[in-house]
Amino acid sequence: MKPGSIVAVTLAVLLAAAAAAAAAPQPPTMDQVLAASKPSDWRTLDPQNTLYLQLATGRVVIELAPQFAPQTIANIKTLVREKYFDGLDILRVQDNYVAQWGDPNADNAAKRRTLGKAKAKVPAEFTMPLAKDFTFTPLPDRDGWAPQAGFVGDFPAAVDLQAHAAWLTHCYGTVGVGRDNDADSGNGTELYAVIASSARWLDRNITVVGRVVQGMELLSSLPRGHGDLGFYTKSEHQVPIKSVRLAADVPVKDRAHLEVLRTDTPTFAALVESRRNRHDEWYKRPAGYIDMCSVPLPVRTAK
Amino acid sequence: MKPGSIVAVTLAVLLAAAAAAAAAPQPPTMDQVLAASKPSDWRTLDPQNTLYLQLATGRVVIELAPQFAPQTIANIKTLVREKYFDGLDILRVQDNYVAQWGDPNADNAAKRRTLGKAKAKVPAEFTMPLAKDFTFTPLPDRDGWAPQAGFVGDFPAAVDLQAHAAWLTHCYGTVGVGRDNDADSGNGTELYAVIASSARWLDRNITVVGRVVQGMELLSSLPRGHGDLGFYTKSEHQVPIKSVRLAADVPVKDRAHLEVLRTDTPTFAALVESRRNRHDEWYKRPAGYIDMCSVPLPVRTAK
Repeated sequence: MKPGSIVAVTLAVLLAAAAAAAAAPQPPTMDQVLAASKPSDWRTLDPQNTLYLQLATGRVVIELAPQFAPQTIANIKTLVREKYFDGLDILRVQDNYVAQWGDPNADNAAKRRTLGKAKAKVPAEFTMPLAKDFTFTPLPDRDGWAPQAGFVGDFPAAVDLQAHAAWLTHCYGTVGVGRDNDADSGNGTELYAVIASSARWLDRNITVVGRVVQGMELLSSLPRGHGDLGFYTKSEHQVPIKSVRLAADVPVKDRAHLEVLRTDTPTFAALVESRRNRHDEWYKRPAGYIDMCSVPLPVRTAK
Repeated sequence: MKPGSIVAVTLAVLLAAAAAAAAAPQPPTMDQVLAASKPSDWRTLDPQNTLYLQLATGRVVIELAPQFAPQTIANIKTLVREKYFDGLDILRVQDNYVAQWGDPNADNAAKRRTLGKAKAKVPAEFTMPLAKDFTFTPLPDRDGWAPQAGFVGDFPAAVDLQAHAAWLTHCYGTVGVGRDNDADSGNGTELYAVIASSARWLDRNITVVGRVVQGMELLSSLPRGHGDLGFYTKSEHQVPIKSVRLAADVPVKDRAHLEVLRTDTPTFAALVESRRNRHDEWYKRPAGYIDMCSVPLPVRTAK
């Protein structure tokens, strides 16, 4: 064989390999993963654990996670059924941190709203002991905030197996319970939603009760407060809450019929991989990594 | 010695230890670190590398990082001196991602604004080769997005020593250059600011030119767009840009006289530690960790 023909063969092999690579299926993008999802990959929201926070601009839908904070969530549901939040306000919007709502007169014993049948004192529920039937979907990657990151009941969560504890984590849209310095000083009358994509340093320091599944932009685009901690300095800047209702107490025709992607499915694993390594044409260098708060948790309107 | 006296001694020892612990200095909080900072811990912004993006609601101050993207930033400065951005718009505000501005007619050759002396084509500057005099302040913690996280020239940055490369990272307030699918299709006519606290998957995929040091809330609180990628679907929703100016071209009396905390100082190291392990009374469990995008980069008005 002459050198010339070796070159020719080599070129032919290279060209064949290039053609094969071009024909090989690319890993799917997130849009492709979702388009190929099955009905069983999705679950509907439980109306007994879904809150509607109604503002003049629209409705914020919050899914509660009672397995993580049973006593606090029971108290919040009692407050909601007492119509405690109706007519109260968003009091604090701190840029790149949280939007928080409650009673503007909370510190004034003469003027503050009564709690009705709700409890004034609820224990701190910062972490949950691991139950026997506990199911956890781990992320393939780790972060420095917790021993293991993943999802529980389709909520971002972390686990410490040595401490036999799990907890919900502070990602974009996480809803938690404002408190004072005492660990058990949060009873659910003051709630916040994270408007930064992460505030993980709050993990295990406060009771988390769920996450916003729709309407985040109604909170994240509010004017920022310019007092300490982003509190509005004038009452006319506060954003009125029309009502907060449990979905189960709303006529079926008026509910938000939403479905969330289940995190314990191969479809969700494929979605995570599509974001760890983005192969959309725009990306030149897939990250090869993802942190918990960067994983999208898809929500859609039920058909 | 009788058992009783042993108890007494033990109690006395315990009480003495408790008193000593109460008297021992707590690690400082961030506020205490900043209050104790020296004038030399701060540096003023270079007017030759500071942009003022003027909106009806106020001024957004952007510090440029020419060591990372010299050609792109030179082109942006040319565009600014041509008054290219004056009267253009914020076109896109995607919730938990970016606010982006540029020419609404960019895709219409007949109507789009001319570039004047600026270049239509600029090379991609996604990473910077490490120079001999390169100084990097590493964070004590690592994350999964890059081999080493830290700060360069007081900007959040990452380093890959094996690849001899450094790059600016996508934290809250990072400003980058919009591009199409081709790597070199961003010339600085379209810019974005990150309004999520992290979008690290964009790192090394796009040219980053600096960060917002003041006025982020003017971008982060804008109404979200409801078109694809958060583009506004109607021109009347777009947010007009009054002007973009280089600080050096603005009379001294009209400049924002800002100082940023230097990241190559013991004061900054103490600040990082005060956030890795928060000892403010409110916190019950310090995180023992921090990621790059969670480290505050303090800015103050010069005295």
